Amino acid sequence: MIKIAIIGGGNVATHLANAFSKTNYVSLVQVCARNIEQIEHLKNVTSITNSIELLKKADVYVIAVSDDAIGSVSNKINHQNSLIVHTSGSVEMQSIQTKGRKGVFYLLQSFSKNKKVNFDEIPFCLEAENESDLQLLETLAKSIGKKIYHINSEQRKQLHVAAVFVNNFTNHMYKIGADICNKHQVPFEVLQPLIKETAQKITKLSPEEAQTGPAKRNDQKTIQNHLALLNAEQQEIYKLITKSIQQNGKKL
Amino acid sequence: MIKIAIIGGGNVATHLANAFSKTNYVSLVQVCARNIEQIEHLKNVTSITNSIELLKKADVYVIAVSDDAIGSVSNKINHQNSLIVHTSGSVEMQSIQTKGRKGVFYLLQSFSKNKKVNFDEIPFCLEAENESDLQLLETLAKSIGKKIYHINSEQRKQLHVAAVFVNNFTNHMYKIGADICNKHQVPFEVLQPLIKETAQKITKLSPEEAQTGPAKRNDQKTIQNHLALLNAEQQEIYKLITKSIQQNGKKL
Ligand SMILES: NC(=O)c1ccc[n+]([C@@H]2O[C@H](COP(=O)([O-])OP(=O)(O)OC[C@H]3O[C@@H](n4cnc5c(N)ncnc54)[C@H](OP(=O)(O)O)[C@@H]3O)[C@@H](O)[C@H]2O)c1
Ligand SMILES: NC(=O)c1ccc[n+]([C@@H]2O[C@H](COP(=O)([O-])OP(=O)(O)OC[C@H]3O[C@@H](n4cnc5c(N)ncnc54)[C@H](OP(=O)(O)O)[C@@H]3O)[C@@H](O)[C@H]2O)c1
Repeated sequence: MIKIAIIGGGNVATHLANAFSKTNYVSLVQVCARNIEQIEHLKNVTSITNSIELLKKADVYVIAVSDDAIGSVSNKINHQNSLIVHTSGSVEMQSIQTKGRKGVFYLLQSFSKNKKVNFDEIPFCLEAENESDLQLLETLAKSIGKKIYHINSEQRKQLHVAAVFVNNFTNHMYKIGADICNKHQVPFEVLQPLIKETAQKITKLSPEEAQTGPAKRNDQKTIQNHLALLNAEQQEIYKLITKSIQQNGKKL
Repeated sequence: MIKIAIIGGGNVATHLANAFSKTNYVSLVQVCARNIEQIEHLKNVTSITNSIELLKKADVYVIAVSDDAIGSVSNKINHQNSLIVHTSGSVEMQSIQTKGRKGVFYLLQSFSKNKKVNFDEIPFCLEAENESDLQLLETLAKSIGKKIYHINSEQRKQLHVAAVFVNNFTNHMYKIGADICNKHQVPFEVLQPLIKETAQKITKLSPEEAQTGPAKRNDQKTIQNHLALLNAEQQEIYKLITKSIQQNGKKL
């Protein structure tokens, strides 16, 4: 039985604590948050504390605190024979301050406290300094999830910026679509099936194969018609992405 | 019983012919394509022809040919008491050349011949010159679909450019994400759950409410870190969309 303790009382800590408390292979020995009210609701499933210095002994300490606090929090853990991991997508493994073993247990998904998550669908991105610690993290991950990847710190940084494109920037494309609809009294829901289909299509085709539309076809007449309908900010984005789609086309 | 005939042998004509041939309220009297082999497979369900001049009498003629051919094809239909509609998202209703009644029967979805479509999920965007023709098109739409909208030519143009943002440009965001992953030996599938969640989120929140990330938070440290990881083309897109997200934030 692997013993783990979780430090943090936010979104990720809460979801992980709930998930681990239900497994058979892992024993959640304690959850620690400086503000103990945040984890009060966990006291029926595990021991809770607000004192990081008095943490119980565990095989793995999972630090799920704000990125900036990972260094200082890790520094306070007094169990140098245990593995200490953080859960951040953008912080290097080496930011963990310990003379002992380090690792990363990053779940690539956005969490909010009240939103249920399906751990089976979440990619677990694991990193450690040696094979046996990687195995240990894999056992932890498999106890609550299914999709397990070994991702080093450099790859994790790259994934993080890729995620900005497919999540934040995609959402901004939806925003512009919604702005255009609102301005012309068209319900945005008309576009929902297309949005869904666009996301589904790339589970079977590469984004390159899935591309269609006036930019891909270099349909100048339609491109000019579209530009005439947009405001200055939208035009700038339309032109730049159209150019980028066409450059990718040429590189093929 | 409404009688309809379909002109065209491509993606849209094929899917519409198959759908209408199965309804009880609509009688598909004929399908016409200049290249009759394209519609050979329909001859068990309806009459087929390659001669537009000899089209049977119908209440509604649905022209599902290439955008550029809509004018000339409509001009050849000799049934001036019938309603003539096209199926295009980007062509004005007035491009239909007839002394009779005009309309539009636009399905906002991307079709390919071999891909099954679920008509229940597709938005039908209808337009006509008068209320009774709009009712007629609505009856047709309801016989094969569920989501019916009245969208005039101006709104349809706007929808078309909005669709470029949420479909083609979103797909290009996926492309950039995939390029970054490929370059660093990270499987693109790691991003699939996030892509799915991003698309699902806006069925419940507006894109504005759904936005997160370094641009929204104005997290300059992360933004600079990200830019350092990208090539020149990706940087230009990253900067422009980040700026646009922040400008929207300010307008609130
Ligand atoms: N949310 C996501 O979608 C997501 C997804 C993947 C990974 N992550 C990563 O997971 C980690 C936690 O994120 P989160 O969303 O759970 O954050 P969160 O909800 O904001 O919670 C942060 C927690 O860290 C605590 N904390 C902050 N500074 C601290 C300090 N100096 N000492 C001790 N505790 C401190 C906070 O306590 P107070 O409330 O007392 O400040 C809070 O309990 C981060 O590394 C984040 O990058 C988040
Ligand atoms: N595909 C989509 O995702 C989609 C979605 C919504 C709306 N639409 C609209 O639906 C319409 C049809 O699109 P589609 O995708 O079905 O096109 P398609 O698969 O390319 O088929 C076009 C059809 O039009 C015929 N055609 C072209 N020029 C003609 C002419 N001068 N005279 C007679 N027939 C001619 C073609 O015949 P040949 O093969 O002999 O050239 C072919 O049968 C277009 O207005 C399009 O904008 C398409």
